[in-house]
Amino acid sequence: MLKLYGFAVSNYYNMVKLALLEKGVPFEEVPFVSGQTPEVLAISPRGKVPVLGTEHGFLSETNVILDYIEQTHPEHPLLPSDAFGQAKVRELLKEIELYIELPARTCYAEAFFGTAVEPLIKERARSELLAGFATLKRNGKFAPYVAGEKLTLADLMFCFSVDLACAVGKKVLGIDFLADFPQAAALLGKLREHPHMARIVADKEAAMPRFMEMVQNKR
Amino acid sequence: MLKLYGFAVSNYYNMVKLALLEKGVPFEEVPFVSGQTPEVLAISPRGKVPVLGTEHGFLSETNVILDYIEQTHPEHPLLPSDAFGQAKVRELLKEIELYIELPARTCYAEAFFGTAVEPLIKERARSELLAGFATLKRNGKFAPYVAGEKLTLADLMFCFSVDLACAVGKKVLGIDFLADFPQAAALLGKLREHPHMARIVADKEAAMPRFMEMVQNKR
Repeated sequence: MLKLYGFAVSNYYNMVKLALLEKGVPFEEVPFVSGQTPEVLAISPRGKVPVLGTEHGFLSETNVILDYIEQTHPEHPLLPSDAFGQAKVRELLKEIELYIELPARTCYAEAFFGTAVEPLIKERARSELLAGFATLKRNGKFAPYVAGEKLTLADLMFCFSVDLACAVGKKVLGIDFLADFPQAAALLGKLREHPHMARIVADKEAAMPRFMEMVQNKR
Repeated sequence: MLKLYGFAVSNYYNMVKLALLEKGVPFEEVPFVSGQTPEVLAISPRGKVPVLGTEHGFLSETNVILDYIEQTHPEHPLLPSDAFGQAKVRELLKEIELYIELPARTCYAEAFFGTAVEPLIKERARSELLAGFATLKRNGKFAPYVAGEKLTLADLMFCFSVDLACAVGKKVLGIDFLADFPQAAALLGKLREHPHMARIVADKEAAMPRFMEMVQNKR
């Protein structure tokens, strides 16, 4: 059985967890915290979460894990059947990761953990995020899902990245990234009502106090 | 016929170009410069290079383009045949991109174009690059290629990213990232001798004067 290493507060972890639930693939959750100890690095080469434990070994990097699950468990597909359609989903997923998730992440410390971020970093995050949201608006279909009529891997990145990026926008940058992007706001709302989201959110809320304690202890 | 949009100085452009040459897939090069004009954004949603023009439409993001070419032109494969082996190649490619290419890129202005980069940005690039090279050392096979005995997509990212990151290390950060990484140095040397590299390098050198002039004019 596949093993999912990570913790329920991680948005990347939850992308993979939602994919597994959505596809009905059995999996076991293994508590695992990111870090730079030899034990962690033996499982995750960059010390990050999530990791997928497979019969062949460990896999890191969320989009790689999602593609592997899709390829080995084609039932309840989260990718179209044609190569170009698949590429467009992967393109949208990557754009959300590189141009929304990663710049937003540089401000997580201030948005969520009470540690001020340097003005230069915020200034860069602001311009990158504005360009990132413009990219998504330009390239996303929102019909109603990011890549079209069906839920795909791009929606998993969208749902767990865009909500946090919007929180960064409001709390740190004074920008409402969805103000002129109603189709994204509507999709976020729709995905929050998704049947499997209740479990993801409940698990996250249950794990939050211990996670915040760990963050405080590290400071 | 596939169309490759971009310019010969771009390292991402050259990854795709080498893949097409390596696989013997016919393609046409279309001069295209990254930017934020409506004309550019109509072809590339984030205004970046390269773009692949296909019979179905445009594709952005180098790893997505490489996977698409691989899927639609399976001859002369640059991925193993099994799903786990493919995932490991994609994992290595992604790790090189996220943890080496992207932090190095934050210092390109100082390394290659004579514009000083803020100390805070350099400090972050230094710690990210050290972790990125440690990741590659931990996870790469170098037997002799990044993912094992055969040339794969991971080598394309390696060859065009690691050389520039090493230049950033030497010129901007005062670090020789390959000093204790002989297997990577050996692979870089081997890839430089690769038959198709001569054309890539010659095209890059021919395009460089005009590119530098463009950069100077933008300053």
